[in-house]
Formats: sequence, C-alpha cells, structure tokens
Amino acid sequence: MPATLLTAEVDEDQAQLDYYAADPITLGHPAPSLVSQAADALATAQRPLVIVGKGAASARAEDAVRKLVEATRVPFLPTPMGKGVVPDTSPYCVSSARTQALLKADVILLLGARLNWMLHFGQTPRFAKDVKIIQVDISPEELHNSVKSEVAVHSDIRPFAEALTAELAKRKFSLQPASHPWWKTLQEKQTANAEFVKAQSSDTSVPLNYYAVFKAVQANIPSDAIIVSEGANTMDIGRGMLLNNLPRHRLDAGTFGTMGVGPGFAIAAAMWCRDHAPGKRVVCVEGDSAFGFSGMEIETMFRYKLPVIVVIVNNNGIYGGFDKETYNDIQSAGDVTLCTPPTALSNEVRYEKMMEIFGETGHLCRTVDDIQAAVKKALAVTDRPSIINILINPQSNRKPQAFNWLTESKL
Amino acid sequence: MPATLLTAEVDEDQAQLDYYAADPITLGHPAPSLVSQAADALATAQRPLVIVGKGAASARAEDAVRKLVEATRVPFLPTPMGKGVVPDTSPYCVSSARTQALLKADVILLLGARLNWMLHFGQTPRFAKDVKIIQVDISPEELHNSVKSEVAVHSDIRPFAEALTAELAKRKFSLQPASHPWWKTLQEKQTANAEFVKAQSSDTSVPLNYYAVFKAVQANIPSDAIIVSEGANTMDIGRGMLLNNLPRHRLDAGTFGTMGVGPGFAIAAAMWCRDHAPGKRVVCVEGDSAFGFSGMEIETMFRYKLPVIVVIVNNNGIYGGFDKETYNDIQSAGDVTLCTPPTALSNEVRYEKMMEIFGETGHLCRTVDDIQAAVKKALAVTDRPSIINILINPQSNRKPQAFNWLTESKL
Amino acid sequence: MPATLLTAEVDEDQAQLDYYAADPITLGHPAPSLVSQAADALATAQRPLVIVGKGAASARAEDAVRKLVEATRVPFLPTPMGKGVVPDTSPYCVSSARTQALLKADVILLLGARLNWMLHFGQTPRFAKDVKIIQVDISPEELHNSVKSEVAVHSDIRPFAEALTAELAKRKFSLQPASHPWWKTLQEKQTANAEFVKAQSSDTSVPLNYYAVFKAVQANIPSDAIIVSEGANTMDIGRGMLLNNLPRHRLDAGTFGTMGVGPGFAIAAAMWCRDHAPGKRVVCVEGDSAFGFSGMEIETMFRYKLPVIVVIVNNNGIYGGFDKETYNDIQSAGDVTLCTPPTALSNEVRYEKMMEIFGETGHLCRTVDDIQAAVKKALAVTDRPSIINILINPQSNRKPQAFNWLTESKL
Amino acid sequence: MPATLLTAEVDEDQAQLDYYAADPITLGHPAPSLVSQAADALATAQRPLVIVGKGAASARAEDAVRKLVEATRVPFLPTPMGKGVVPDTSPYCVSSARTQALLKADVILLLGARLNWMLHFGQTPRFAKDVKIIQVDISPEELHNSVKSEVAVHSDIRPFAEALTAELAKRKFSLQPASHPWWKTLQEKQTANAEFVKAQSSDTSVPLNYYAVFKAVQANIPSDAIIVSEGANTMDIGRGMLLNNLPRHRLDAGTFGTMGVGPGFAIAAAMWCRDHAPGKRVVCVEGDSAFGFSGMEIETMFRYKLPVIVVIVNNNGIYGGFDKETYNDIQSAGDVTLCTPPTALSNEVRYEKMMEIFGETGHLCRTVDDIQAAVKKALAVTDRPSIINILINPQSNRKPQAFNWLTESKL
Repeated sequence: MPATLLTAEVDEDQAQLDYYAADPITLGHPAPSLVSQAADALATAQRPLVIVGKGAASARAEDAVRKLVEATRVPFLPTPMGKGVVPDTSPYCVSSARTQALLKADVILLLGARLNWMLHFGQTPRFAKDVKIIQVDISPEELHNSVKSEVAVHSDIRPFAEALTAELAKRKFSLQPASHPWWKTLQEKQTANAEFVKAQSSDTSVPLNYYAVFKAVQANIPSDAIIVSEGANTMDIGRGMLLNNLPRHRLDAGTFGTMGVGPGFAIAAAMWCRDHAPGKRVVCVEGDSAFGFSGMEIETMFRYKLPVIVVIVNNNGIYGGFDKETYNDIQSAGDVTLCTPPTALSNEVRYEKMMEIFGETGHLCRTVDDIQAAVKKALAVTDRPSIINILINPQSNRKPQAFNWLTESKL
Repeated sequence: MPATLLTAEVDEDQAQLDYYAADPITLGHPAPSLVSQAADALATAQRPLVIVGKGAASARAEDAVRKLVEATRVPFLPTPMGKGVVPDTSPYCVSSARTQALLKADVILLLGARLNWMLHFGQTPRFAKDVKIIQVDISPEELHNSVKSEVAVHSDIRPFAEALTAELAKRKFSLQPASHPWWKTLQEKQTANAEFVKAQSSDTSVPLNYYAVFKAVQANIPSDAIIVSEGANTMDIGRGMLLNNLPRHRLDAGTFGTMGVGPGFAIAAAMWCRDHAPGKRVVCVEGDSAFGFSGMEIETMFRYKLPVIVVIVNNNGIYGGFDKETYNDIQSAGDVTLCTPPTALSNEVRYEKMMEIFGETGHLCRTVDDIQAAVKKALAVTDRPSIINILINPQSNRKPQAFNWLTESKL
Repeated sequence: MPATLLTAEVDEDQAQLDYYAADPITLGHPAPSLVSQAADALATAQRPLVIVGKGAASARAEDAVRKLVEATRVPFLPTPMGKGVVPDTSPYCVSSARTQALLKADVILLLGARLNWMLHFGQTPRFAKDVKIIQVDISPEELHNSVKSEVAVHSDIRPFAEALTAELAKRKFSLQPASHPWWKTLQEKQTANAEFVKAQSSDTSVPLNYYAVFKAVQANIPSDAIIVSEGANTMDIGRGMLLNNLPRHRLDAGTFGTMGVGPGFAIAAAMWCRDHAPGKRVVCVEGDSAFGFSGMEIETMFRYKLPVIVVIVNNNGIYGGFDKETYNDIQSAGDVTLCTPPTALSNEVRYEKMMEIFGETGHLCRTVDDIQAAVKKALAVTDRPSIINILINPQSNRKPQAFNWLTESKL
Repeated sequence: MPATLLTAEVDEDQAQLDYYAADPITLGHPAPSLVSQAADALATAQRPLVIVGKGAASARAEDAVRKLVEATRVPFLPTPMGKGVVPDTSPYCVSSARTQALLKADVILLLGARLNWMLHFGQTPRFAKDVKIIQVDISPEELHNSVKSEVAVHSDIRPFAEALTAELAKRKFSLQPASHPWWKTLQEKQTANAEFVKAQSSDTSVPLNYYAVFKAVQANIPSDAIIVSEGANTMDIGRGMLLNNLPRHRLDAGTFGTMGVGPGFAIAAAMWCRDHAPGKRVVCVEGDSAFGFSGMEIETMFRYKLPVIVVIVNNNGIYGGFDKETYNDIQSAGDVTLCTPPTALSNEVRYEKMMEIFGETGHLCRTVDDIQAAVKKALAVTDRPSIINILINPQSNRKPQAFNWLTESKL
C-alpha cells in the first residue's frame, strides 16, 4: 500500500454509506410445518433439553426464549455467551448438571447454538448415540453440521421461539419438575454438584480456592453487570459461578479461546455503558496469565475515565503455578530457565500496584473479607478503573470432570 | 500432500455422511410485516418492475413467481440464469425493453437477483436516481448491497412470492397492459426492438448475421431443451433470441464470464437428462473462440454416448475476426504474428469435421436452410453428440446499445 | 478490480522498466575451500555419480559440465529437464542403469538437481543409507534439504564446474571405464537394459509397443530438435528413448506433472525458433489423454504458421485403455458410464483428422514404416503444424520397475 | 487441526533433524570480473558513498567491511540494523550528514542494504538522478530493484569486501578526508549538524528534550551493550545518538516498524548474553507508547532473572502528548473521548512503579543527573530488570528535516 493511497481523502458525500445507515435487517421466519415438527418431537420426548446459544443472544430473542422455557419447563443449558438469554438463576437452568443433561437427553433443541468443539461435536461418548436434534440457525450452512438434525430450521430465533411456544401450548406440553423422571435425574446431579460447590465455596481457608473467590465476587457485584472473562480455570469455573441474568452481558474469550482480549472487550463495553446505560458496571475477570497479555490497557481505562473493575484471580500461572517456597527455591537454584515450566509465572505478583503508576491504589486480597471490601470500594469509584488482585492457592483446580477436555468420539 | 495420504482409504461406514443424506433444507419464510410493506410499495408504484434472478430458480420458486406475475401483470425481467422461472414467452416479459425498464422503473422487486455488475450496481445512469428497491434474498449479507433497499426481505423466494401474491390480491392490485401508461411506454420500446430484431433476423443474406442464425436455431429446437451458452456476442445476443420456458434450463458462463465451461456444463446436463428426463435434449451454443477452450470434450460426449447438440456460431474470432480475403492477405504477408490481433482466429475453421475423428459427420451451415436441416438431423440422433458449425459474417454485431458495457455511475 | 482500473493506461516513459532492461545477472561463485572439499570427496569415492539437473541447464553451464564429465569420466545421470546439458549419447551417461546408479553410489555430486520426489528424496531404499552428497545450488534454502549434504556449495553451476575440473585435474582424478569396478557394475546393468530395450524396440508386431514407436521417431527426427513431452507412459518411456544432445531442448510436464501444457510449450518454443533458430524443429510428443487437454491449440499453430510436429502416442487411455473389441462390447452394453473407468478413453480416436478442420491431411500410423514416412513428410512441411497419430497396443507398458513409483522410505 | 494431531508425539530418532544440525552454509563468492568493475566505478567516482546494510551484519562481514572503509576512507552510512558493522564512532561514518550524502553521491556501494522505503527507493528528490549503484546482495531477486544497478553483484558480503579491498589497493585508491572536496562538503554538514545536536543535547532545562536524554544515556551505558529500540521519535532520534561499535548489537522495530516487539527482542538478547556473553548488558529504549504494547513482559524478565535495562522516553504520547495542565483541563472537561486525540496518552504515567509489582523500585528521571544516577544503579543490578522512566517535554521533536518522511519521487 503506497503512502499516497493510505493518506488519500474522499469527500464524505462521495462515500456510499447507505448500507451502514440502513435499519437492522428483519431476518427470516420459520416454515410453519417445521415448527409443528419441532413441537411434535419435543412433546413426545422423554428427556428433552434446550440449549440456548450465542445466536439467541445476537437475535435479541430473550423474551421469546424465556417464555418458551417457562411455559414448557424443559431443562435448558446456556452456552458461554448464551448465558443470560434466560437468567442463570432460572429454576429450569441445569448448568450444574451439564454433563448428565447432554449425555441423557433424547431430544435436544438447539437455539442458535452449534455442535462445535464447545458442545463436543454432538458425538458419543458425550451425547446419547440416538439423540434427536432440533436445530434452529440463521445460517443454513450450519444445519446438519456434526450430526444430522431430525428437524433443521432455518430461521431467526425470536419468531421461531414464539411460534414453537404457541404450538406446544396447543399440545398442552409442559413438564412437571416435581414429578417428571427426567427432572428427577437432573435434580439429583444438581444437588450433588451444589453440595460440591457449596463445600468448596464455603472453604474460606487461605490461600483461597476458585469457588470461594467466585462466590465472594458474585455476592458483591451488581446483578446487571457486564461480565468479561478470560483465562483457563478462571474462565471455566467462573462461567458456572458468576451468573448472568441479562442477555449480551457476558464476553468470553470466544470460539478460539484467544487470550488477551479481555481488557479490550471491557473498554468497549464500558464505552457502550457510558453512552447507553449510565451506571451499569463492567467487571473484567482475568486469570493472571491472561492479564499478562494486555494489562497495559489499564492506561486506556484511566485516560478515558472508564470505571472498569478488573478482578485478577492470581494463581501464579496457567492452570496453576508454584507456591512461594517452591518459587524461591527455583529462584535460588542455578538455572531458572531449566527449573521453570513455561506455564508457571512469578510468585504472588502484585498486579494491583499497577494502579500506583497512575497515582491510585489497588486492592490485594487474600481472604473473602478482603474481596468483599475491595469490590465495595471499586463499585464506589465511577471515574477510573480499579484492580482487585486476589491471590489464590496455586494448586486450586476444577471439580474432577467425567470427561477430558476436548473428548472426541471414536471417530 | 504425501502420496501415503492421497492413497489412504477409509471404510465407508466410518465416513460421516449424515450431512449429504439429509433432506433438502427448508429455508426461512418472510416476516409478515415485510410482505405487507412490499405490497404497499408495489401497489402504489407508477412504474413497477420485477427482476427474477438466479436465486428464484435455485429456490424452485417458479410456480409462486409465475402466479405473482400473472396475477399482478407487473412487467418483469429475468437475469440470464433467471430465465425460464417465468417463461420468456410470457406477455409480461419485457426483456426486449430492458434498458428502458431499468431506467424508468420507480419500484423494483428483486427476487433472488443481485445489483452486481450484471445489473449495473443499481446506479445511475442505468437506473433512476430515486428508484425504490424491494429486495428478497436468502443471504442477509446481500441486503442493501450497492443501494439501500426500501424493503429488505430475508426469505426463501417461494413463500415470499406466495405471501406477496395474497397481499396484493387483498389490495386488488393488477395492472392493465392495454391501458396503463407504464405498459404503454414499455410496449413502444418492445415494438421498436421487435422491428429491429425482425429486420435483422429476416435478413437471410449470406454470410448470415447473429439474429438470423438464432431465429433459425430457436425455430427448430424443442422448447424444453436445456440451453448451455458461452461466448461474447454469441452469449449476449443468444440470451435474447433463444427462449427458456422452464426454470433451470439455461447455463450461462456465469458471474465471472469464464470461457471454456460450456462443454463441461453440457456433459453434466446430459448426464442428468439421461437419469432424470430421458428424451430431453441439451443444446450447447458456443462462440468459436469459446469452443476453442474445451472442444476436445467431444471425446467425452462420444465415450458416454451423450446426444449433446453443439452449435458453433463461427465468426472467426472474439467479437469478430477477418473475412476470407483479409485472412489470406495476412497469411501471405511477411509476419503473421504482427498482422493478427490476438482476438482474431483462423478463417472459416471447419470445426464440424471434429466429428470425423470419431467416424461420424458434422454439419456445416451457411444458410438458414442449412441450419434447419442440420438441427433436424441432430435431433434425430440420440446416442452421440452432433456438431453444427455455422459460418457467419465476421462483422456481424449486436444492436447498438444505449449504454456501454460495464457503464459505471460517476462514483 | 473495477473496469476503470483494468482499462487504465500509463505512458510508457512513466513505467519503470530498468529492471527488465538490465543485463543477465552474474551469479555467485563458489568459495574456493568448498571446491577443494568437493574434489577431495569425489577423488576418494569408490562409486561416484554426477546428477545433472535443470539448474545446470538454466545456468547455461553446459560447456563446463561437459568438460568436467569428460575429464573425470564419472558416470552421470540427467534429470528430465537436465537432459542435453551433457549429451544423452555421451558414453558417461548411465540413464539406462539409473536405479543401480542411485542405489550404489557412495558420493553423489548434485549439479543444480534437487532431492525432491523425482529423486526419491535421496532416501533409502532408493539410495544407499550412508551416501555422501555434494550439493551445488544457487538457492541456499535448498542446501541440506531432504538429506544433510557432506559438502553444500552455494554457487552458480558454471564457475563451480570449472573450478572443480581444475581441482580434480590437480589430483589427476579420472576413472577408467574399461577397468574400474564401479563402471563394470553399471555397464552390466546398461547391457541388460539395452538388451531389454533392443528386444522391445525391435518387436515391430502390430499394434506397436512404446519402445518400437520411440525408436522409429528417434531415428527420423533431427538430433537438434526441441522435444516437448507430456503424458504418463509416453513421457516416462520417451524420456529414455528420445535423446537430447543440446541443453534446454526438452520441455517436460514439469515439477507437478501438470497435463495440458504440451501444445502451449510447443507454440512458445516454435515462436522462439522462428526468431532465433530458423530451421530448428519442435516435436511435441503427446499421450492421447494429454492431447485431450489442449488439442484445440492446433488452431493457434495454424494461425501463426508454426511447423510443430505433434506426435500422439495413442493407447486409448491414461496408462492404457481398451482394445477395439472390448470397447465395442462396452458401447453395446446397457450403461457405458458403469462399464468405463475414467482412465479409459474412446477407442482408436483419429486425432490426425483434426488437420482436416484446417483443410490439410494428418498421418495415421500403425507400423514402423508408417511412422518413418509420416515423420519425413512432416519435416518437409515448414509453414503449418503436422499431426502424427500412432495407434499402439493399449496394453503396452514400461519395463517392470524394481521400485514402485513414489517409493518412500520408512520415514 | 484436531486435538489428536496437536497432541500427537513422534520419537526423536524418527524426526529428521539433519538440516538443523548442519554447519552454517558458506555462501557464494563474487565473480572476479564484477569486483573489478566495482573497483573501477568507485575509483573513478567524485563523490563515492558506502551504505552498510543489515545484510553485512547478518553475513558477519564486519572485519572485511571495516578494512575496506579504513583502507579507502570512503564515507559510509549504516542502515539502522547495519549500525556497528563499522563502528558508529569511525571517522568515516557520515550519519550526521546523511541527507547530503545520499543527495550528492555519484557512486553508491550498497553492501547488504536495499533501496526500499528506508532508503527512499533510491529515487529523486532524495538521490541524484544519475547516481550509479554498485549493489552487493545475497538474493539475486533484489538486484536492480527500485533502480537499475551499474554493477550488480550476487555474493556473500565478506568475500566481496575482501576482494574489493584488494582490487582498490592495486589501484592505490584512497580518499584524503583532509583535502578531498567530497569530504569537505560532508564535513560542513557534519559540523552544522554537530552544532545543532550539541546545542540541543546541552540544553538540560527541564522538562528535557530528546537529545539531552540520549546524550546522558549514551554517556553512561557500556559501549558494548546491545541496544533494542522502538518508538517514533525515540527510535528515530535515538538511532543517531546511541552509538553501536559492534555488529549485531542493535535491534530496531524492523522493516514494517511494528511496535511492541522491543521487550521480546530484549528478552531474547538477554538470554543469548547469559549463555554466550556473560556480563554484556541489554538496554531496551522504548517510547512510552511502544512500551504500552508489551510492558507486561517485565514479568518474564523477573521470572528469568534477566538484567535488562528498560529506558522509557516518556513524552505522554505518540510523537508527543499533552503537558500536565492541558491534560488536567481535558480530564475535567465533559467528554474526554472527544477532547483526546488517539495519539495522546495519559500524562506523566509512572511506569517505573511497575517494579513495585515485583517488590523492587524503579527510577523516575526528570534531569540529566537523574538519568546518570539511574543508569549507574541499573548497571549494578545483575539478576533482575530495571525500569528508568524519563519524563520529557511532550513538545520535544526532531531537528526539522529537509524532506518529509516517506518522500516519494514524482512517479
């Protein structure tokens, strides 16, 4: 690209801006016969499941999807960025029995969700071999991907969900959570998981574990905050512990899990809040490794007076680092490069002191009380970012999983 | 790609073929409110026009689109591969007043047609500056492209056309060709054009012109033949002269005008006819330059016994070559490479003799009677291809056009 | 690319043409120490071998390479487009013992040749496990590719060959073909191969085999002709039978074996002959399948009066087709598409009749006498192409090979 | 890429590592005749100039190039990463008369330097219209690029420089700086520039300007330090002020001026020093904007105990930001996003406090004395990085330039 071209100018009235000025496009509605087929399939299922995807959030289909779930009482799972289309606090959300729900469901309704690696490609051993898929997607190319769908619906999510709700009402279809065997099965798992989480999150011994940290964060942030999240365990465990009750209020690292995007996402979200939702807060939850990619963006937040609350869940590394003693041993040893795996970082880095670069003070937290106090102080600040650096147990980890990450089918 | 990979084998039952085995996907329907808006816009137009695109053919929307046109009597134009969705012989087809129709229309309904270079990007000077566009497309990314649409409908063409017909019936909307001023304007141009074409096509002096050739071909081929076409003038003039009354019965060189695709298209179409429409014929109309790309495919037609009728409209070059005298002068001159422009080919090449390579005889035509006799003989042959080589006037050309090819707006 | 840009013009004196007007670039010479190392390695070898690659031809290094080979009497192999740098008729050429030469050599000097798939990547089982490579290449990125070279020389081939010849002369290094054990080993294989080829090429029973065809062609074409070649067996067997005694006089299908390039190569070569070597002839040897890609280019040869001699070695398919009886059986059978493999073509296609398209006559050959007569007639024609269509035995094949094509090492 | 492939393992003895284990490749030498031509061109020049490029550094040609310059006393210019091949302190270095040297030279010897944008494409108005170029490059594709070279030499730089020195010695070619008119011309410019630089660098008023800062840094760092540099003015002005007397001791942002590479370069250089040159120091000179890209890499420096000295030349922005008063005005204003151009950053950011994140203390400098003290302390530290944050005048700038950056010729 020659400099003459890069620095060329064009008059604004010569630039064709029609496309950008156009109203949002009203997308296609479902063929009525497919809605009927979908209703039949769901109404005759023994173990139906709804998966609410990012597509439902993009489609602004929250009202319609909530009505569908509430009318039918079918258990649902959100995908990471589908969280909040139906509130995470809904009694029909079965995120805490996710593995079981995927494994046992006999009919799954995909609302703007795709059977990619995040949903294990819809294959055994993570899904039942003969599960029937009802797939609703705005991109026809996605239909039948990974598995052949029983009912493949090309449609905007909103009109589909409205039409399906009406069809199922005609069939008087609604599960009874109190008595339906499918709900019983799921509730058992939910209870077991809730007990695990309760035990973990109530264990406030220092250094803290992830569950205790997230419980304390969740208890103190506004329920309508926009949550940005990146990291390994931080993002994975935080997904279950930090709740979204509004759609489009969660920004994860996304399809390829690219690290370093969190502060940029948070800045964009905070600019949007400033213009469209004054008072709404952005909470940017970062693993310490993730923060290491783009932490310098704190300068941008200061420059534009954006009150982003940056929470760093600091375990001294990626998936875990060293405790202080081991770290000091390594530093005293002959060759740090040989002793240190690339996934371990420095010990107890005081990222909160980055605030001092800008003449302010950050928050170092080691206890649940520290977290509560720090979040309260951060919420009181409205014209600059805050950093809350939470030092946790480097060996803290997820609940053991029934399946490995990225489990593949035999194929 | 290592040879080990290229020659690897996988068991058929290990290959996941679900996607390919799936039924055709039922695509999205229009939002009802948009149908209503489109109906309002059309019903209040002074000079409405329908453009039927390739998308309407792919959507298998012919019944619905025909009913729409016949009920409303709105003039329509087909794009090259949209020909036949509504028959070219329909009284509502205004291809012979195309320039005027595009220029004067105040409301245009695009049914699976796109405002790309083939439609001059929808810009002045080829379109009215304030024309309103109603755009119906299955790809939302295409909506508002080139110009902002007044009504942008994301939908499969068939359900949209059905719903629009119903809406317009409610409004009792239907033009009277005999009296409506817009029809009067167009009919004047149609008449003028018909007179030009009639004069040209009736001029059977030898060497023939394009119009006389195509009139003779059209008069003798079955009306349900699949027509494959490539070349410069051959494809352009042939588009108006060779009629399609069935959808998906025309294969042009396509979006980028790539030459050499004709015989391959014809072979594929003939294989399809063999299996799905025995007796239906494929007529492959080639400029001589176009035939020079892939003429060797005649061998494939013989090998598989495919009765493709290859018609070569031979003007000794691309857009035109030399007459015999000039050609001989050049060949006698000192340096043929200096005298011969790259767009001129050898004089009166006897392509029909390629049949003799396979022990058969082709047809050389110089007159309308020759053409009639040759097409008849070719139609009688059902187990091998035929070649009809029509020598025309190298200076024959299109009707003078009001606008240059690829006319651009000021922008 | 907008049409405005495609049709834009720039004044010639504004176009910077310096680069193109520059003299040929004199490329780098070898480091003297490397020449010495190469000389040491060769002079102490038990079974030295020179491989003359396309790079030696491009470098115009023929005089220097010939002197090197003649002074040292080291056996050499040409790569396909390295043929003629040293004449194929040189007593030191061991193409007829190629497999043995590659397998047994203990020191190999690569002159502009690369250990890619055409040289089996330099790996076992085609090469000795501990073979030492002296590699001379103008691209340093190629050095040590596939195998680590004992001596890796970045240099233009010509100055390297000159310097090496001088160095070896100092060491008085020269093999005695009459007595050296390495020469004995190779000569045994050469004799055995010569007997096979002699037997095959003397078998003039009809339909002819490849060897008899090529012997007849070779006997009748000028020894300084440019030979263009493409096809499967046609190119492979022809490489050994049609000799090149001048560099840059052979154009094979090239690195990726792309078919359809032959006639285009022949036209370019004939245009070059017309301007730089009047009277030199171009012989374009085509398999029938290869000719099917670009046979229409005959028109270009006629248009520009290029006396290319197109020889089609016609075995009714790719690597072989059907004999007449089988072909007729298939054509009479119910479904030709099921009976005909995609590698078989029509039977005894009379490609020579393509001449009649241009008012001339081609040559059909079934016997060695036919071939002799046809080549003589074709050579007498100087202002248009000729086609010689030689019908051979569809089952004719190469000599059985010790190793499969594309043999790979265990790795 | 499936996870099965990403996590697959191969035995080390199955991996072919020959290529990597090979000795460095000895590259090609020059054709002797070209050396002679180059010697003739230089020996007859009125205003010869040598440009020493990055290629001379990569070629490890420093001894040969130094001997050439010292024997001939031809003025030379280094490119940014060619600095140090001949010491910047050489009396023959004319960097301080760069514009004049390029403009007036009648014969230019390019040693591994390319006429790309960094050398203004060798075109007017930056070069004389009829300048003769002697180009020496290891990539033949680069020869004659941008301008046609009078002598184009494909060669490794070292053997070329050695041979040229010998050839010029034969011609007894050596300029007399004390009396040669070309040297007189350049020395006048050097003196003028030296006076400007002296005046600027002696102006130690606070806030400091760039020249005073770099003079102080240069005076205190070891002369054999590796200097990494990125930024706008920081890199441009620093190039002239921070001297390199050893080759391959300068790492600039490189061909595309990509920002954010500095800390990574510094870490790599420090790892190399640890293993190959213990005690050698790495000084990483960053603009504040550049540091904002990858400042978090300080953690890596701490983790691996790398004593990199990070010098931040902090002018509150890219090419310059606001002074404190303006910044505070903006922050008090209604909408910071409207008032702040994207090239201005926060005011007086205290980047040195990033040291406190790791429990150490950084250095804030406002005066020349501060700089001297800080560099001394940093040099005394050998097991961790240091940060020296120098606050300068946001309006400080380069000396006015005769030509705009990226000046293009008429073409």
